[in-house]
Amino acid sequence: MLNNKFMKKAIVLLSGGLDSTTVLGIAKNLGYEIYALSFDYGQRHDIELESAKKVAKIFQVKEHKTAKIDLRIFGGSALTSEIAVPKDHVQSAEIPVTYVPARNTIFLSYALAYAETVGAFDIFIGVNAVDFSNYPDCRPDFIAAFEKLATLATAVSVENKGHFKIHAPLMQMSKKEIIETGISIGVDYSQTHSCYDPIIENENILSCGKCDSCYLRLEGFVAAGKKDPIKYC
Amino acid sequence: MLNNKFMKKAIVLLSGGLDSTTVLGIAKNLGYEIYALSFDYGQRHDIELESAKKVAKIFQVKEHKTAKIDLRIFGGSALTSEIAVPKDHVQSAEIPVTYVPARNTIFLSYALAYAETVGAFDIFIGVNAVDFSNYPDCRPDFIAAFEKLATLATAVSVENKGHFKIHAPLMQMSKKEIIETGISIGVDYSQTHSCYDPIIENENILSCGKCDSCYLRLEGFVAAGKKDPIKYC
Repeated sequence: MLNNKFMKKAIVLLSGGLDSTTVLGIAKNLGYEIYALSFDYGQRHDIELESAKKVAKIFQVKEHKTAKIDLRIFGGSALTSEIAVPKDHVQSAEIPVTYVPARNTIFLSYALAYAETVGAFDIFIGVNAVDFSNYPDCRPDFIAAFEKLATLATAVSVENKGHFKIHAPLMQMSKKEIIETGISIGVDYSQTHSCYDPIIENENILSCGKCDSCYLRLEGFVAAGKKDPIKYC
Repeated sequence: MLNNKFMKKAIVLLSGGLDSTTVLGIAKNLGYEIYALSFDYGQRHDIELESAKKVAKIFQVKEHKTAKIDLRIFGGSALTSEIAVPKDHVQSAEIPVTYVPARNTIFLSYALAYAETVGAFDIFIGVNAVDFSNYPDCRPDFIAAFEKLATLATAVSVENKGHFKIHAPLMQMSKKEIIETGISIGVDYSQTHSCYDPIIENENILSCGKCDSCYLRLEGFVAAGKKDPIKYC
């Protein structure tokens, strides 16, 4: 491990889910000093944010901030409004109701503000084009466009001091590969949370096992030949 | 005026200042149905937001939303933190302390979420490269990069339904030209607010007349040969 003074800083967007936790593991494994950023954006429940806190602690990040943002003022998604979360996973070519308009653009914008403040040029995000091909802001051309914007948007472009890099290491991975990668670098998935619609029973968090997010997670663990350490209904 | 059914919708970023109010006037004058968006971002005072409300009402916008966002969690600017607002305007090639990291990127990201929700493809922003040449996110290449990002970031890129346009009509105008343009289309500047550091005396809002923002505003009115209708200390 490098001395802190010489470690490169990275912002990692951390939801506390399986994907972003794996990304945090990857960034840590690459030797970055981690500044984790989570969002309290009017999720249906705050289990996700609790997971993010636990994960940040396990990985001994340098700093963990949670930005409170209210995406509900615009409405428009099952994750933030009263639209029902769909169950019984169905493959479709359409944009899912769980899509939040411009969410990753907003998240990356905050990450950029954070990066500029702490002097980081590297931002890690757990987007994935395999499982989320119908989310426009989970695709490689979106990430490339944001990377280009990031340098132009910040003081470094005036002072000509460097370039931002948006790392999306999971972009082309299947869920199986994500889980295998995480396990190979020691990521503990027992503290992560993925379910869109969990219930709490006797202080235990039980994932529904039926929403898109649970479906993809469970399928990934089965394909990787591993047992998912979290509890289901 | 077109029937509402056929009017094109536009999102207008509205701070309640001279520039954004002029932009709102321009968008209205072009026949757009206006969805105004303001930000409560931990400004030193809420006089700006009150101005935004008054201006939105005067222009009879279709809808006016205020997004509460906390940029103070990152610190780093005189407009949101405890750094002193500089007085006695000095021209400098450096980035001013009033620069808020990635602010316009965050503002435009929210505007994009709003646009996607209401079905607008036009976003208006009052950035200006003449007076704010040292703010990286007030320059034409930044706006062009965001415009490119916007279409890629949203559902329309998946459904191939259209392209976003980021309008920055003040980009190349001097303050004199901005004021002349506004007056020519009937903008009432008495309800606008520009000062970074105002005081309230007997329920009157008095602008300091000394911060960068006041300096540029007053200089603009003098150059345009008009009297600024707001009160100063």
